[in-house]
Amino acid sequence: MENRDVLGVAVIGTGKMGADHVRRIQQVTSGARVVAVVDVDRERAELVAGRVDGCTAYTDPVAAMASTDVDAVLIASPGAAHEAALLAAFSRDLPVLCEKPLTPDAASALRVLEAERRLGRRRVQVGFMRRYDAEYLKLKSLLDTGQLGRPLMLHNRHRNLASPPWWTSAMHINDSVVHEMDVTRWLLGQEITAVTVLFPRPSGNAPEGLQDPQFVVMETDGGALVDVEINVNCGFGYQVQAEVVCERGTARIGDGQDMVVSTAGRWGGTIAQDFIERFEDAYDREVQAWVDATRRGEVTGPSVWDGYAVAAVCEAGVRAQREGRRVEAELVEKPALYD
Amino acid sequence: MENRDVLGVAVIGTGKMGADHVRRIQQVTSGARVVAVVDVDRERAELVAGRVDGCTAYTDPVAAMASTDVDAVLIASPGAAHEAALLAAFSRDLPVLCEKPLTPDAASALRVLEAERRLGRRRVQVGFMRRYDAEYLKLKSLLDTGQLGRPLMLHNRHRNLASPPWWTSAMHINDSVVHEMDVTRWLLGQEITAVTVLFPRPSGNAPEGLQDPQFVVMETDGGALVDVEINVNCGFGYQVQAEVVCERGTARIGDGQDMVVSTAGRWGGTIAQDFIERFEDAYDREVQAWVDATRRGEVTGPSVWDGYAVAAVCEAGVRAQREGRRVEAELVEKPALYD
Amino acid sequence: MENRDVLGVAVIGTGKMGADHVRRIQQVTSGARVVAVVDVDRERAELVAGRVDGCTAYTDPVAAMASTDVDAVLIASPGAAHEAALLAAFSRDLPVLCEKPLTPDAASALRVLEAERRLGRRRVQVGFMRRYDAEYLKLKSLLDTGQLGRPLMLHNRHRNLASPPWWTSAMHINDSVVHEMDVTRWLLGQEITAVTVLFPRPSGNAPEGLQDPQFVVMETDGGALVDVEINVNCGFGYQVQAEVVCERGTARIGDGQDMVVSTAGRWGGTIAQDFIERFEDAYDREVQAWVDATRRGEVTGPSVWDGYAVAAVCEAGVRAQREGRRVEAELVEKPALYD
Amino acid sequence: MENRDVLGVAVIGTGKMGADHVRRIQQVTSGARVVAVVDVDRERAELVAGRVDGCTAYTDPVAAMASTDVDAVLIASPGAAHEAALLAAFSRDLPVLCEKPLTPDAASALRVLEAERRLGRRRVQVGFMRRYDAEYLKLKSLLDTGQLGRPLMLHNRHRNLASPPWWTSAMHINDSVVHEMDVTRWLLGQEITAVTVLFPRPSGNAPEGLQDPQFVVMETDGGALVDVEINVNCGFGYQVQAEVVCERGTARIGDGQDMVVSTAGRWGGTIAQDFIERFEDAYDREVQAWVDATRRGEVTGPSVWDGYAVAAVCEAGVRAQREGRRVEAELVEKPALYD
Repeated sequence: MENRDVLGVAVIGTGKMGADHVRRIQQVTSGARVVAVVDVDRERAELVAGRVDGCTAYTDPVAAMASTDVDAVLIASPGAAHEAALLAAFSRDLPVLCEKPLTPDAASALRVLEAERRLGRRRVQVGFMRRYDAEYLKLKSLLDTGQLGRPLMLHNRHRNLASPPWWTSAMHINDSVVHEMDVTRWLLGQEITAVTVLFPRPSGNAPEGLQDPQFVVMETDGGALVDVEINVNCGFGYQVQAEVVCERGTARIGDGQDMVVSTAGRWGGTIAQDFIERFEDAYDREVQAWVDATRRGEVTGPSVWDGYAVAAVCEAGVRAQREGRRVEAELVEKPALYD
Repeated sequence: MENRDVLGVAVIGTGKMGADHVRRIQQVTSGARVVAVVDVDRERAELVAGRVDGCTAYTDPVAAMASTDVDAVLIASPGAAHEAALLAAFSRDLPVLCEKPLTPDAASALRVLEAERRLGRRRVQVGFMRRYDAEYLKLKSLLDTGQLGRPLMLHNRHRNLASPPWWTSAMHINDSVVHEMDVTRWLLGQEITAVTVLFPRPSGNAPEGLQDPQFVVMETDGGALVDVEINVNCGFGYQVQAEVVCERGTARIGDGQDMVVSTAGRWGGTIAQDFIERFEDAYDREVQAWVDATRRGEVTGPSVWDGYAVAAVCEAGVRAQREGRRVEAELVEKPALYD
Repeated sequence: MENRDVLGVAVIGTGKMGADHVRRIQQVTSGARVVAVVDVDRERAELVAGRVDGCTAYTDPVAAMASTDVDAVLIASPGAAHEAALLAAFSRDLPVLCEKPLTPDAASALRVLEAERRLGRRRVQVGFMRRYDAEYLKLKSLLDTGQLGRPLMLHNRHRNLASPPWWTSAMHINDSVVHEMDVTRWLLGQEITAVTVLFPRPSGNAPEGLQDPQFVVMETDGGALVDVEINVNCGFGYQVQAEVVCERGTARIGDGQDMVVSTAGRWGGTIAQDFIERFEDAYDREVQAWVDATRRGEVTGPSVWDGYAVAAVCEAGVRAQREGRRVEAELVEKPALYD
Repeated sequence: MENRDVLGVAVIGTGKMGADHVRRIQQVTSGARVVAVVDVDRERAELVAGRVDGCTAYTDPVAAMASTDVDAVLIASPGAAHEAALLAAFSRDLPVLCEKPLTPDAASALRVLEAERRLGRRRVQVGFMRRYDAEYLKLKSLLDTGQLGRPLMLHNRHRNLASPPWWTSAMHINDSVVHEMDVTRWLLGQEITAVTVLFPRPSGNAPEGLQDPQFVVMETDGGALVDVEINVNCGFGYQVQAEVVCERGTARIGDGQDMVVSTAGRWGGTIAQDFIERFEDAYDREVQAWVDATRRGEVTGPSVWDGYAVAAVCEAGVRAQREGRRVEAELVEKPALYD
C-alpha cells in the first residue's frame, strides 16, 4: 500500500535505448518501476520483461497502455512509430517521455502538437537529454543570470569517433545537429530562423560518398549566429563542446575542464563552497551502492577494518600534533574476514 | 507484492546528515525506502517521519530495528552512539551503512571489529564517501591498472572556506584528514605506519588559538610518503585535490579539470569514446526529472513544441545541404500552451 | 672594426610601431642597431634619433637609404607610403622588413610583387608577426609532422577589449581578420579562394552603426573551411585562439593553456624533456638583465648574500639527509650591503 | 666608435653552460659581445674563441681580466674554481655574472661575501635563473601585491626525466633543491631556518643505491612551511611546479597552464589586455629573425606574395561584407620566385 505512489511505467521499444531505459528505471531511478514493455518482436519483449519482477510483455502499445498498472509511458521505439504511440497515450491521458525525435518530420510533429493542444495540457517530455547534462545546466544558469549580457554567438563542436556503415549525410542534421538545434533554442531562448550547411573536402576517414565533416550555420530570431562543426569520423573520441559569446564575456563547456568563463580580464571556473556541493554525487552513489549490495545479500565498500585502522591513525595523528614529533600508528593483526 | 524487494531502511539520527540521507533514500536512491527514523529527540523524529509515507518515528534504535519492516540500518547519529547501534544491528543480523567515524576511538572501533568478526561475515559499510566520488574512482582505476608503476608519494590538499566556531586543532585530524587517511589506504592499498604534523605560522583568518593550516606527513607500510595540507580557513572555497606520484607518471584530480595524467612526455586527460559515456548522467537525470514531475502531476522539460520546432529546423537543414544554400525555417504560430 | 657585421637599420616611420621597433632593435635585438630614422614630421624624427647614439634623422626615406651606414630598412610608416619606400629600397637592393599591410590594396601589392620579381630575388619580409609567436609556431610544427592528417577546418577567435573611435566595419577585415588570412595560408599551406561575412545582431557594446562582432567564413584551394569570430568590443581583453581540425585529431592554442591536442582518446599537452627547453627564456632574460644593469653601472638580481644563504641551507639539507632528522640552518648576520 | 658602449664580456669556462652562454651573448643578447673565453683546456678555449669575431682565448682567468677589452666577466667554470675567479674580478672591479653555485660550500661563499662587503658595493649577480622565468616572475608579482595575504606554505615539484650515472643522493639537495631554496627565499622574502629530508621507498627507476625521490621540508623565519618533491627519475620529462598558499588564496605555476589563482570562489588566469602584451615576444622574434637572415644574406619569413595574396583576400572580404554574399578571391599566377 505504501508504494502506490511508485510510478508504473510502460517502456515502448526494447532496442538499445529502450532496454537501457528499463535498466535505468529499475536500478537508478527513484520512485518508478517498469510494469510493461512493448516490442513488435514478442521474443525480445518477453526477454526484457522476464528480467523485471512484475513486468508484462506486450507487442501492442495500446494494449500495454490499457493496463491499470501503467501510470506513464516511455517511448523508445523507432521514430516512425512515435506518432501513433503518442496519440494512444493522449487518448488515455498518460504522461509520456518520448525519445528524440518527437516524430520523423515537421508535419507529423505538428499533428502531435495539435493533438496535445486540444487536450489543453502538456503530456509529453521530449528526450532532449542535453538539457539535463551538468555542464549544459551550468552554462544555462550562467546565461540566465544575465551577467554576461546578451548572447551574440554560439560555437559548437560535435565529434564522433566513427560513423556506422548505414550513416548518411542527412543524418548529420537529423541525428546529430538536431541536438545543437535544441540546445540553441533552449540556451538562448530563441527560435532558429535559417540554416546554411557548408562542406569542407571530406576527411579521408569518412566512407566514400559521405560528406563529413560538415559546418552548419544557423540564425535565430534574436539575431544570434550559431555554428556547428559536425564531424562524425573525427577518429579520436566523442566530444561535445559549446561556447556562448555574450556582450561581456564568453562561457565554454566540454573541454575537459569545468565551465570556463572569460570575463573582466580573467578566464577560469568556480570553486565549490562546501563539501555537499563537491561530494553530493559521491553521497548519492555511496547510498545506492549500499542498497544495491544489500539487495544482492552482499556487503561491499569501506569495512569495519577500515573504520578501525583510520581511528588508530587518527589517534597517532593527534598525538603527533600534541607532542610535536613523528608518532607510529599501531594496528592489531588484520582478521581474515577483511582480506 | 511486487515491491517486496524494496529495501526498508531505518535511519538513526535525524540531524543534518541523517535528514539528508532520508531525503536521498526517498528521492534519489532506487530500490529503498525509509520505514523508520530514530532520534533521541522524539519531536524531530516525528517531524522527519511525518514527511515520509509509511515511516514510523522511534527514540530507541533497538525498538526500530525490531520492526519487521526494517531490512537495513543507516547510522547517522553522533559518533559516540555508533557502537551501541552497531552492536544492536549485529544482534539482529542487519546490514548497516555507518556514517564516519565508525566510532570515536580505536579501542571502541576494535570492539566493533571483534563483534563483526565473531559474526563471521561483514555487516557494515563505513561512510567514507570519497571512495564513491567519480574523480577518486577514476584515479583508483588508473592506479589499479599498474600502468604508472608503483605509487611513491601522494600529495593532498584539503581546504575549507572557514571553520565553524567550535572547531579545534585536533579536529583537523579527526574530522578532516581522516578522509585522506582512508583515501591513502584505499588508493594505495597500504596501511599507514607513522604520522607527523607540522605547523606553519597560523593564518590571520584562523580564530585565535587555532593551529591552522597544518601539514600532515604520513608513511605507509608500502614505503609511500603522503602529505596533506589541511587548511580550514582558506577563505576561497572548498577544494580537495590529490596527486599520486608513481614510478612512471603522476595523476592528479580536483583541479577544475578532469583527471590530469603526466606520463611519457605528455600531460592531459581522456576523451569519452561514445555518447553513453559522456551523457550517462544526463540520461539518468532526464528520467528522474520525468518521474519526479509525473509523481507531482506535472509535465516539465522539452515540450512537443520543442520537438516540432527542431523537426522544422532539421527539414530546413537537410534542404540547405541538398541545395547548397541558406534555407529559412518556417514555424507555425506557437500555441499558448507552450508559453 | 670587429662590429662591422652589426646591421645598420633605417626605420621609416616613428609612430607607435616605428618607435617601438627602434627601442626593440636597440635594446632587445642582437646584431643590429638603428642608424637612421625617417618621418615626414622632422621634429618627431629628431626626437627619436636623439635617443640613439649615432642615429641620424631624415624626412625622406630615399635620402636615408642613400647613407652608407644603412644596411637594411624597416618600414613602419602608414600603409599608403609603403609602395614608394619599398621601390626605393629595391632600387638600392636593400633588404626590408615591411610592417603589414604590404600596401593598402591588391593592385599596389601586385606592383611591388612585379618589381621584386624583376629583381630576381626576395628582398622583403612582411610583418605578419603571428608566424613568430611561440604558440602558432608549435601548432605549425605539429601540422607539418603530418601526424594529425590533413587539416579539414580551422576555427579562429579574435577578440579585442574595445574598438577605437575611428574604427569601421571594413577594418574588421583589413586590420583584424587580415591576420587570420595570413595564418590560414601559412598554417595550412593553402590559398584562400572565397570569403563570406555574416553578421549577428551587433553587441550593445559596439558603437552605433558598427557591425560588431562579425563571423567570417573562408574556403581554401585545399578544400579546408576556415571560420573567424572577429569581435572588437568583447569587453574582457585581447584573446586570439585557433583550433585546427584534422583527420585524426585537433590542436588548439590561445586558451590560457599550452597547445592542447585531442587525438587517440586523449586531450592534453607536452612536457619539456629537459631544463634547457623549460628555462631557455629564463637564461636569455638573465643574461640580458645582467648586461643591461652593467651598462647602466648597476648590479641587480641574486646577490652574493643569496649565494651564501643557499649554500648554508644546502649544508643543512645534506646533514638532514645523512642524519635522518630536522637540521637547523645557521646564517651570519646579513651585511647592510645586501639590504 | 658608436659601439663603445657594447659590453665586452670574458666567459670563464667553456663547458656546456659556458659555450651556451657564448652563443647567447653573441646571438641573442643585445648590447654585449664575447671578447675573451677562458678554459684550462687551451684547445677548447681556442675552438670556442675561433667561432667569435674578435675573441681571444685564454687559459688563465686573471690574464683574460687584464685585457682592456674586458668590461665584465661571466663565470661558468666548475664550482670549485669560482672563488678564485670572483676574487680576481673583485680586484679589477669587474662586474660578474656567476653561474650557481656561488661556491661549493658556505665557508667559501662567506669569504666571497666578506670580500665583496669590503669593496663596499655589489659586483656579483648569481645565476639563479628561475628569478627570470616568466611564470615565476608572474607569481612573484602577484605575491608582492599582497592581495592574497601572507604566504603560509609553498609546495614545489621538481622532476627530471632520469638522473645521469654520476648522480648522488646529496646532489638532490646541492644541484636540484638548491633552486627551490633560492626560489623560497626570493618569492617569500624570508630566510630558511631548518631542513628535514624524508625518503619514500626508492623508485624502481632509480639506480641501485640512489635515494630517489626525496621529500624536503623547509621552515622559514617568517613561519612559512615549504615542501619539495625532488624526483630525478620520474620517467616522463622535466617538470617544475610551485604553488604558494596564502591567507586568501593560492597561486600555482608550471602545470601546462598560465598561472592559476584560486581566490574568492574562482580558479583561473588572466587575459591579456592588448596585442602588445599578447604578441610582444612574437615581435621580438620577428625582428631578430629578420636581422639574423639579413646578416646571413638571406630573406625569409612572409613574402611579398603573402602580402599580395592577403590584400586580394581582404578585398574579397570587404566586398563580401558589403554585398552580403560569398565572394571569390582571385589571385594572379604565383611567380616562381615565391615557390
